[in-house]
Amino acid sequence: MRPVIEDLPGSLIREVANAGLGRSDVLAFWFGESDEMTPLDVREVAVESLQAGETFYSHNLGLPELRQAIAGYESGLHRPVGADRVAVTSSGVSALMVTQQALLDPGDEVVAVVPVWPNLTAQPAILGARVRRVALRPDAGGAWRLDLDELIDAVTPRTRVLLVNSPNNPTGWTLSRAEQQALLAHCRRTGTWILSDEVYERLSYDLPEAGRALCAPSFLDIAEPDDRLVVVHSFSKSFLMTGWRLGNLVAPPALIEHLGKLLEFNTSCAPVFVQRAGVYALAQAPQTVPRLQQRLRACRDVLVAALQALPGVTVAPPQGAMYAFLRIEGQDDSLALARHLVAAHGLGLAPGAAFGPEGEGWLRWCLASRDPARLRLGVDRLAAAGLDHFGRG
Amino acid sequence: MRPVIEDLPGSLIREVANAGLGRSDVLAFWFGESDEMTPLDVREVAVESLQAGETFYSHNLGLPELRQAIAGYESGLHRPVGADRVAVTSSGVSALMVTQQALLDPGDEVVAVVPVWPNLTAQPAILGARVRRVALRPDAGGAWRLDLDELIDAVTPRTRVLLVNSPNNPTGWTLSRAEQQALLAHCRRTGTWILSDEVYERLSYDLPEAGRALCAPSFLDIAEPDDRLVVVHSFSKSFLMTGWRLGNLVAPPALIEHLGKLLEFNTSCAPVFVQRAGVYALAQAPQTVPRLQQRLRACRDVLVAALQALPGVTVAPPQGAMYAFLRIEGQDDSLALARHLVAAHGLGLAPGAAFGPEGEGWLRWCLASRDPARLRLGVDRLAAAGLDHFGRG
Repeated sequence: MRPVIEDLPGSLIREVANAGLGRSDVLAFWFGESDEMTPLDVREVAVESLQAGETFYSHNLGLPELRQAIAGYESGLHRPVGADRVAVTSSGVSALMVTQQALLDPGDEVVAVVPVWPNLTAQPAILGARVRRVALRPDAGGAWRLDLDELIDAVTPRTRVLLVNSPNNPTGWTLSRAEQQALLAHCRRTGTWILSDEVYERLSYDLPEAGRALCAPSFLDIAEPDDRLVVVHSFSKSFLMTGWRLGNLVAPPALIEHLGKLLEFNTSCAPVFVQRAGVYALAQAPQTVPRLQQRLRACRDVLVAALQALPGVTVAPPQGAMYAFLRIEGQDDSLALARHLVAAHGLGLAPGAAFGPEGEGWLRWCLASRDPARLRLGVDRLAAAGLDHFGRG
Repeated sequence: MRPVIEDLPGSLIREVANAGLGRSDVLAFWFGESDEMTPLDVREVAVESLQAGETFYSHNLGLPELRQAIAGYESGLHRPVGADRVAVTSSGVSALMVTQQALLDPGDEVVAVVPVWPNLTAQPAILGARVRRVALRPDAGGAWRLDLDELIDAVTPRTRVLLVNSPNNPTGWTLSRAEQQALLAHCRRTGTWILSDEVYERLSYDLPEAGRALCAPSFLDIAEPDDRLVVVHSFSKSFLMTGWRLGNLVAPPALIEHLGKLLEFNTSCAPVFVQRAGVYALAQAPQTVPRLQQRLRACRDVLVAALQALPGVTVAPPQGAMYAFLRIEGQDDSLALARHLVAAHGLGLAPGAAFGPEGEGWLRWCLASRDPARLRLGVDRLAAAGLDHFGRG
């Protein structure tokens, strides 16, 4: 066993979840998925494919019709994307892994904007690369900010890859257009690849320009097809398809052939019946995504207002993604606090330390729920916990 | 782009398949899958899971009931295997990749028995390890043999992993029990991990001992749970589930937790509806696997006899797996030959060079077909090609 693998932290979220094992009354907001199942019509498309016997290997890069559908969907949101720049992957995390395999030699340097979901920084460690962390920092109101100059200073000609996840899991922080432009210009000078995890691009709460679809700023709005840029997407979040393990990426055409080889050597291909559901979900997006956006906005507003009403809680409305990231006065050990909340109060939250030391002292609350009343009930439990544990009242 | 990734060969099989694009009359035997779809009742189990809304994340290591079913199935074939030694993976190739990620630091040495399907040796190259190839060699009748002394000499205390795929794709070569015992004893002395790709364990044509199920010799028959051994299985071949991307591995208990982390960082989990189908397929195995074994044995006998009747063809009946590996006198460039066969004669075979330089001059023919008449028709095309191209007759 390699020491670097032994040293990789296990999931602190899972550790908290285990503390709630055997309790049926836990309100769980710890994982990054909605409690809403995939819509029936999307599932029916996979059912039809299975019934038709589509149980054979598919092309490494995905079904041509799915690559075309992804290209069309992303072109509707950003600058035109050709299907020759698209690869279908067996999840967003797999897209991130094959891209890092393509780009990172052992010893290479990666700069990552943190806190961030742990997979993004574990992958370069697995590949023997060194990760330099540049921290977002919270303001007094709990909104997380990037120091752009600090990030630009950290990215040098020795930086092989800049890893950025915006809208960000866990903080909701979202890159502005001006920041993206500055980073792209800088990375063109240093020869650094930008690996942009944009799986939450449609989960944005800033209002769009008139006539534009609601979508966070993307590097695909400003980059040329041949820029050193790979953008990763997933069907998990905007299409309520976490369990399907379907993702995709947009890369320069010259990289796609090599990514196809790496997909062969990692997972070979995504199941055809899963890909068919993806084609259908994209066709429904003009109807389904705005409805989901509306529901999540309502969840966000309910949850953040209720949390802000609690004494000692700091939380800002997230700009994007689907999490409230909050801090409770005097509580600095997020793992101990999260374990206590699940064990004593049946409230399941993710400890901020799961996202790196920069998140220590914070808690992540997934706000994606069919029923905002569930969120209110969770806040009631936090309030009750505060009364007997935090020593207030 | 890393030079090591640019240098990875693309699929030569795909290159041949492209030469047949636009021809609807090609008899394709190039890919490693049967032309038989997954049985209806297995597909129906996935359909029921989808209809029940099982569209959420699952445990990194797989559903407990699937891990238990795999442990039970393998325990029925080999020495007892506990579910704590089992991980469910998103394909056999993914199981091989995460295991090599766990074991191989950059610069480490791997010994691989070749020719072999290219994924197995591409993975260490991706991870920056060095691959030392030990070649099987064909006898005059076309049966491939291992020089055990040569392999044992090649595995030294510097060898981190021994990669072996038995029954072997493409040659059908199968390790004997005595060879396995010698290798295990030697690797215990050198501290070398054995990574054993046994996805064809049930596709074996040697008759079993009385009262035993038909199964190739496995390292799981002789090893202790804590031996440095990882055995990889797949649902693709014995259960006709290639397109589902479902595999599994058996490893020492102490490794499983770390493999779970690596699964999180590679693909996170296999879809629940796919795993449900896996549980069902294993329950049906006592009926379905012997029937498949019988059909493939008939395919093998038809194909090998017809090929052996052609002048200038060397081929031995494979001991295991689902390929005939053949050589045609005077034909040394397998890629050129395979391209010619598809373009001029509508016969789709895989070039031996796809499996390494040791396979050059040979062709791989997948014998898994619903209909042995299709195999005969293919042999007729090869015979016709021989008459106008090989200058015989």
